[in-house]
Amino acid sequence: MGNSKDDSKQRKAEREALREELLETQFELRSLEHGSVLVLISGNDFAGKAEVIHSFYEWLDNRYLNTRAFGMPKGVDKRMPRMWRYWRTLPPAGELGFYLGSWYHQPLMKLSRGQISINRFTAQMQDILHFERLLNDEGIILVKIWLHLTDDERGTRQRVDPSLLKQTVAMREWGDFSAADYEKVREGARLMTELTSTNESPWIRVPATDPHLRDQRIGQIVLEAMRQRINTPPVPRPVYGWQPAQRDYLAQLDYSQKLPKDEYQQQLLHWQNRLRDLMQHPRFARRSLMLVFEGSDAAGKGGAIRRITQCLDPRILRVHGTRAPSDEERRMPYLWRFWRRIPADGNVVVFDRSYYGRVLVERVEGFCAESEWQRAYGEINEFEQQLTENGTLLIKFWLAITEEEQLKRFKEREASPVKRYKLTEEDWRNRKRWPDYVEALNDMVEHTSTRSAPWHLIPAEDKRHARIQTLRILCEALEEALE
Amino acid sequence: MGNSKDDSKQRKAEREALREELLETQFELRSLEHGSVLVLISGNDFAGKAEVIHSFYEWLDNRYLNTRAFGMPKGVDKRMPRMWRYWRTLPPAGELGFYLGSWYHQPLMKLSRGQISINRFTAQMQDILHFERLLNDEGIILVKIWLHLTDDERGTRQRVDPSLLKQTVAMREWGDFSAADYEKVREGARLMTELTSTNESPWIRVPATDPHLRDQRIGQIVLEAMRQRINTPPVPRPVYGWQPAQRDYLAQLDYSQKLPKDEYQQQLLHWQNRLRDLMQHPRFARRSLMLVFEGSDAAGKGGAIRRITQCLDPRILRVHGTRAPSDEERRMPYLWRFWRRIPADGNVVVFDRSYYGRVLVERVEGFCAESEWQRAYGEINEFEQQLTENGTLLIKFWLAITEEEQLKRFKEREASPVKRYKLTEEDWRNRKRWPDYVEALNDMVEHTSTRSAPWHLIPAEDKRHARIQTLRILCEALEEALE
Repeated sequence: MGNSKDDSKQRKAEREALREELLETQFELRSLEHGSVLVLISGNDFAGKAEVIHSFYEWLDNRYLNTRAFGMPKGVDKRMPRMWRYWRTLPPAGELGFYLGSWYHQPLMKLSRGQISINRFTAQMQDILHFERLLNDEGIILVKIWLHLTDDERGTRQRVDPSLLKQTVAMREWGDFSAADYEKVREGARLMTELTSTNESPWIRVPATDPHLRDQRIGQIVLEAMRQRINTPPVPRPVYGWQPAQRDYLAQLDYSQKLPKDEYQQQLLHWQNRLRDLMQHPRFARRSLMLVFEGSDAAGKGGAIRRITQCLDPRILRVHGTRAPSDEERRMPYLWRFWRRIPADGNVVVFDRSYYGRVLVERVEGFCAESEWQRAYGEINEFEQQLTENGTLLIKFWLAITEEEQLKRFKEREASPVKRYKLTEEDWRNRKRWPDYVEALNDMVEHTSTRSAPWHLIPAEDKRHARIQTLRILCEALEEALE
Repeated sequence: MGNSKDDSKQRKAEREALREELLETQFELRSLEHGSVLVLISGNDFAGKAEVIHSFYEWLDNRYLNTRAFGMPKGVDKRMPRMWRYWRTLPPAGELGFYLGSWYHQPLMKLSRGQISINRFTAQMQDILHFERLLNDEGIILVKIWLHLTDDERGTRQRVDPSLLKQTVAMREWGDFSAADYEKVREGARLMTELTSTNESPWIRVPATDPHLRDQRIGQIVLEAMRQRINTPPVPRPVYGWQPAQRDYLAQLDYSQKLPKDEYQQQLLHWQNRLRDLMQHPRFARRSLMLVFEGSDAAGKGGAIRRITQCLDPRILRVHGTRAPSDEERRMPYLWRFWRRIPADGNVVVFDRSYYGRVLVERVEGFCAESEWQRAYGEINEFEQQLTENGTLLIKFWLAITEEEQLKRFKEREASPVKRYKLTEEDWRNRKRWPDYVEALNDMVEHTSTRSAPWHLIPAEDKRHARIQTLRILCEALEEALE
């Protein structure tokens, strides 16, 4: 009796001491402009996942906790790429995130139910590893906790203590599983932790039998993670084996192609009508379209885009000019601001410049570290792969002009009231780096021209020719995708 | 023949001249950090609403055009307050917005179909006028255009020129209406334009027979609107007849109430269990809960909030600390950042400080103009009314402590490692303005304590007492709302 009272006193003191440290460290963490801590809480039902979160809500400043719980996807989450909902809700720099039922939940659930094969599961774990490496590279410390109860303990909790269950918030994400089902979940979890325990983010198994010890342990882990982020700012991971392009793609273009005005008018009418028809195709309602326009300054991106948007219903269209990130965007991983702009089913998004800025202007101008642009190729490929696998038709255009043509257009712009605003000091500066851009462009084409999202290099010396080419390629791709 | 060719040449020249002016003015507009132009395009089917938008997409820099089209609400739009979807999509400062099927569409549709009475329609028009006045006060120039076709013209277009329809994007938002139905729409539109043509935003009727003249006219109107915004920065509208509070609400509070520890523990258990039960109520799935906590510094908001959030499922909970607006938020009307955080069905949002900052800290510290905080009371009431009418249970707490108690707590905070971070220079500064805050508080209570969202002033000299009071009020309000 006396012992138990001492115990309780000691526990209270321990809890209070931890709380002080956590709260102070959370406060320090908030000053970071880069980097955050994301904690995945997984594990058996009845192991107290919700109680763990409640402890943190009791300990920490609630305003900088980002708790998200993910069940099986519903509504729009179901129709967007698998990782979209996780991307959207990442914690901003300086804050803490807690995910209940993270990206592991769905694959594990499906494996346990026999809905996917081990091979498919393993492939999904690989995708997850790539995603987690990206988070790590972006300065997010990922803590993966598996709350562990033995079978007996689970049984006891489930049978004996209904009042406890009532007091807690039910987190029965596994539904009403039988003992045999649980065995399957456990097997799956074992495989999962084996496949996805990395140096940076190992799975940490926390015994959940004693709620006090459980919360103290997790509190310590989160504390250490925050301290690590505060004391060791994220260091760019060097990219091994990155190879510059072996070909000069631009040099192979035929810039001499031209389209006379009459023929242009005729073709424009033809392809625009074709595009209007295709956009009415009933199958488009279940697909989406994302167009990426890149090109040298004054290559005619805006004009080519307008010839396309003229044919599109403004209700389903967004044109995004990629500008400097907002302060909310700056506190998020690089690709976040593009993830938030991807098209929903039946919609069209046009990027007038895009996430490729990372490997073009940011690389050339030195706005990001070498390792950042070098790893961007792979990250972009994975981003695009998720989009195309989910039914987005992704078409990427590079409008190419020669250095001489650009100079001619700059001079014309200076003289034209309509176009003057388009020309800035920066454009003249960029021009001086022409060879660097050519190099960056060739690397981009080499590393990101994939089968499902190849680059289309369009000679744009003649604007009419370029406009018809983009329209034609778009129509043909839509036709193939829809018919 | 020769004449028609000259005409066509002249039209082309006119179009080009307008385009130059529009593009230059759009470029100037972009430099504004405050204010934008929002154009509502309404009117008959076949009057060319989509073509008008296409003209602007052809003329202007697409990246700063925000086109939205609203049909009858579906999905989440249907479950959120009526104006939510319009709030969310307002154009940022310096940009242009085009709304097709704006907030007028649904009431007009319903009136024409006989689904709402004239009285109800008129009341909705009043709500709209309030909303438009707010937009105007926030520096958004609202241009309301009604595209007009006579019956004959409509008939002709519909019957005779299917190729034209095919070339355009169908915008048949009115569905397949008969002539009699159209007559009803026209009657409703007449009433609508009468009721909602204001000095700041009159309805402008534009003949839509000739597409060239139609687009030229609208282009001119938009040009003038942009110029007006650029040349005359928004001037705060003085608020007439604003009256300070007639009572001292704080003085009436009994600060002596106390709760001994034993009783507190017992009551805490009781009310927290009650709250957990209530949150499981099946009817809550169709309602939502928004809690607003305000109070002097160190009044114990965080502690009271934690006693509540402990009982809530983290999956349906968000706690927002109201911080300085982000740069995206700064380019939007004041209430935008709160509209984007309102709870969806079945969810709980807690504001640890809120939009009331406008009439508290911003007023006292002079962060906004007198007219801004004076008009905020009415805007907040309308915001809250829309929430409560839509089924959100909104509960507002002011935690009140005396000046002496605050000083005591500040000193305790200085000494405590867990609480030290909570105390800033600003807190000491605020303290010096105690009488100003009392005045602001009384005005706030007087002007925003409405029947559906009254203020609860909680004496918080004793934290235990305050925590139990907030829990009890919350439980009782939930009980009344759900049972």
